[in-house]
Amino acid sequence: MKSGPLLRASPDQIAAAARRVMARCDELARVTATSGEIERVYLSPEHARVNRLAAEWMRELGMRTWQDAAGNQVGRIEAAAPGWHGSHGSHRDAPALLLGSHLDTVLDAGRYDGIVGVLMALEIVRLLRVPRHGGEAGEGGDGWVVPLPFALEVVAFSDEEGTRFGKALLGSSAVAGTWDESWWDLTDADGTTLRRAFLEFGLDPGRVGEAARHPDEVVAYLEAHIEQGPELDRAAEPLAVVSSIASARRFQLVVEGEARHAGGTPYDMRRDALLGASEAALAVERICAAEHHIIGTVGRFEAFPGAVNVIPGEVQFSLDLRGEFDGERDRVWGDLSRELDEIMGRRGLRWRARQIHAAPAVFCAPLLQDVIRAGIASTLPERREAPPEIFSRAGHDGMALGALTQVGMLFLRNPDGISHHPDEAVSAGDVAHGIRALAESVLHLAAEPA
Amino acid sequence: MKSGPLLRASPDQIAAAARRVMARCDELARVTATSGEIERVYLSPEHARVNRLAAEWMRELGMRTWQDAAGNQVGRIEAAAPGWHGSHGSHRDAPALLLGSHLDTVLDAGRYDGIVGVLMALEIVRLLRVPRHGGEAGEGGDGWVVPLPFALEVVAFSDEEGTRFGKALLGSSAVAGTWDESWWDLTDADGTTLRRAFLEFGLDPGRVGEAARHPDEVVAYLEAHIEQGPELDRAAEPLAVVSSIASARRFQLVVEGEARHAGGTPYDMRRDALLGASEAALAVERICAAEHHIIGTVGRFEAFPGAVNVIPGEVQFSLDLRGEFDGERDRVWGDLSRELDEIMGRRGLRWRARQIHAAPAVFCAPLLQDVIRAGIASTLPERREAPPEIFSRAGHDGMALGALTQVGMLFLRNPDGISHHPDEAVSAGDVAHGIRALAESVLHLAAEPA
Repeated sequence: MKSGPLLRASPDQIAAAARRVMARCDELARVTATSGEIERVYLSPEHARVNRLAAEWMRELGMRTWQDAAGNQVGRIEAAAPGWHGSHGSHRDAPALLLGSHLDTVLDAGRYDGIVGVLMALEIVRLLRVPRHGGEAGEGGDGWVVPLPFALEVVAFSDEEGTRFGKALLGSSAVAGTWDESWWDLTDADGTTLRRAFLEFGLDPGRVGEAARHPDEVVAYLEAHIEQGPELDRAAEPLAVVSSIASARRFQLVVEGEARHAGGTPYDMRRDALLGASEAALAVERICAAEHHIIGTVGRFEAFPGAVNVIPGEVQFSLDLRGEFDGERDRVWGDLSRELDEIMGRRGLRWRARQIHAAPAVFCAPLLQDVIRAGIASTLPERREAPPEIFSRAGHDGMALGALTQVGMLFLRNPDGISHHPDEAVSAGDVAHGIRALAESVLHLAAEPA
Repeated sequence: MKSGPLLRASPDQIAAAARRVMARCDELARVTATSGEIERVYLSPEHARVNRLAAEWMRELGMRTWQDAAGNQVGRIEAAAPGWHGSHGSHRDAPALLLGSHLDTVLDAGRYDGIVGVLMALEIVRLLRVPRHGGEAGEGGDGWVVPLPFALEVVAFSDEEGTRFGKALLGSSAVAGTWDESWWDLTDADGTTLRRAFLEFGLDPGRVGEAARHPDEVVAYLEAHIEQGPELDRAAEPLAVVSSIASARRFQLVVEGEARHAGGTPYDMRRDALLGASEAALAVERICAAEHHIIGTVGRFEAFPGAVNVIPGEVQFSLDLRGEFDGERDRVWGDLSRELDEIMGRRGLRWRARQIHAAPAVFCAPLLQDVIRAGIASTLPERREAPPEIFSRAGHDGMALGALTQVGMLFLRNPDGISHHPDEAVSAGDVAHGIRALAESVLHLAAEPA
């Protein structure tokens, strides 16, 4: 790995790029289904509007653009020099390095989650390619600052959050070629199926397979994203290299007791499902908090029949369990299961769990971790110690892309870790650092011997 | 108080009365809005049908019948001898001893809660009055076995459970004269107001005040009811005298924290409303279980926003708190409030409570407790010890009637304490004991010197 900066760009150029990213985050925030909030869900009119804006910005950079068969917006610029690690095609057939993130949001969202990564990717293209008609820097052939041996594609994924249909990563799964036919019958809150929403958006469900990329067409996937956690803020660090994306399992749990009269039933005759489930929620906290890198959350929790004067006979609740390693996560689920057996046994309750989601940890490729580390290091040349390395407890498009290609991620500091919330923030200064680091990462990757 | 039996009735007569009660419970159970279950709510077609059946059974006993202005079904038989504790009217103006309970049910109800008390009251009338055209026993004037100095009324209350409009004791409140004009706007699950339901049932909302009785018209209210708890079953006793009906307060509580990303937020930054509320529910159990006669129940419990991957920012839950004495109940609420302060303070949460219901304890009148005690004792002449005395944690029509007159209650053994459930039960043998005890109670009351 080469060390030291490879990018020739002035501090002013980088600062201008960061200002443009911030201004465009504000501009995209105005494209919302709910006035006064930010809400852009998959296959909505807002989705179409931000795709058009992104495509316009891509074309300004000389990129060829298209909206793929799953509604992802893509821009591509061809390789400057043919051949990448043994590929033998022409410029136009060169495999592409994918840079991107997503433009969809949760309900009442912030303006940076996903969005900032797409807009930073556009600035990387701007920095690495000389404008055809003059520009500040120039070297290499075909308008490239350096003659990249791969094409660059910026991908604005259409659905990462899963807000509308409850299933996350629809856009990136289509690109990864892991679309599942059973998803067509998923419905939104209005009962509209995913199939129907495709048609209403102007997409052909029968052609969704055309969004899938072949592994040979792709070099890697690199993404910049806000941390969605407080670790960088606490460490007073602007950037981190991501080691892996969390391993996750989600369960729907049911605790069954007996619904009885709240007045007439003494404590020793109660089989109160709510009290058992309350102990379970506290056990999740106690057991996970004692681990190093495990987080468990009970997010949904409903008691039945839900009458003031009836002892709850049933509680349904969810468990979201995340960890850095699949094995550790599964061991903790085992510990929790034994604890639930004890709690429910003592209270005369029954319990059962149905797994509703499972995703293995996605490990960022060592080579990509190295180039991102080098990219971050080159933005802070005075520093001695290595850039921070953190694992992402939040899910990302890279989890789906991992089925297609090697994945690398760069995290930006997220003040107080507030995310999925209107107060979500990132500073222009950190975005500037991030742009330089990501551009350097791409150049370090390009400089790797085949 | 006279001791020893006053009733002249053969074991066969009592057994036949109990069999009739059991058969009529089965007959009424077939009057239901939901086939395969028992469901009779206020002002429904089922309410009208059971009123017609009850009226028919009342008239068979020679009673004058009417449906009052709140849909309660009443039957009356006049006093045999004028004058009760100084009243000077004719027979027809004599004040009445009210015997009764309710015919409405919860959803998916049992067949005895309320119903058995109405049907037992009819058997008391049958036992105390000689049929005009011959009968097994006879003494006293005007067809009475003994010349009762008060009229007897059987009241089948129309709404005790509050199933349809969420407000309990509507029927008995109308009789007690405590109807509240604000209730007219209460709505059922379909949005029908109480006012509209009155009209649809054929009642005039403007005349509901006519259901109210004057204290001078009423001697007392006596009710037999299944225990809705396991104490008699555990003590192997068929009957108990009720000392009081529970003091109750109900609260709607809100715990507020912060909704954040379930993956990205480490435990030490969470303000998880669900975990605070879970601790609160367990504290209710711990604190109340350490008291003698206090029961607290969290029946409703909802977490918001209620998404698998979002830490709950708010929980709303209910607390139903019952005790034998108002002061004890209020002291426990104070203890709970301090505990909630500690829990929520430690977790960085806020909490607040709104009282949605408060009813003071209703103490059964000492005289009525004495006559019921004498009534029970006379059914078990071989026994030495006094009949069991228990306080009712469940609410009853007597809570409303307490505003009108003195109240007495007799409890029947309820196997395993199962109530508000299809498995609710009472034995024919215990009903026979109860009929004899209640008839004796009436005779002991009649024998009290003015």
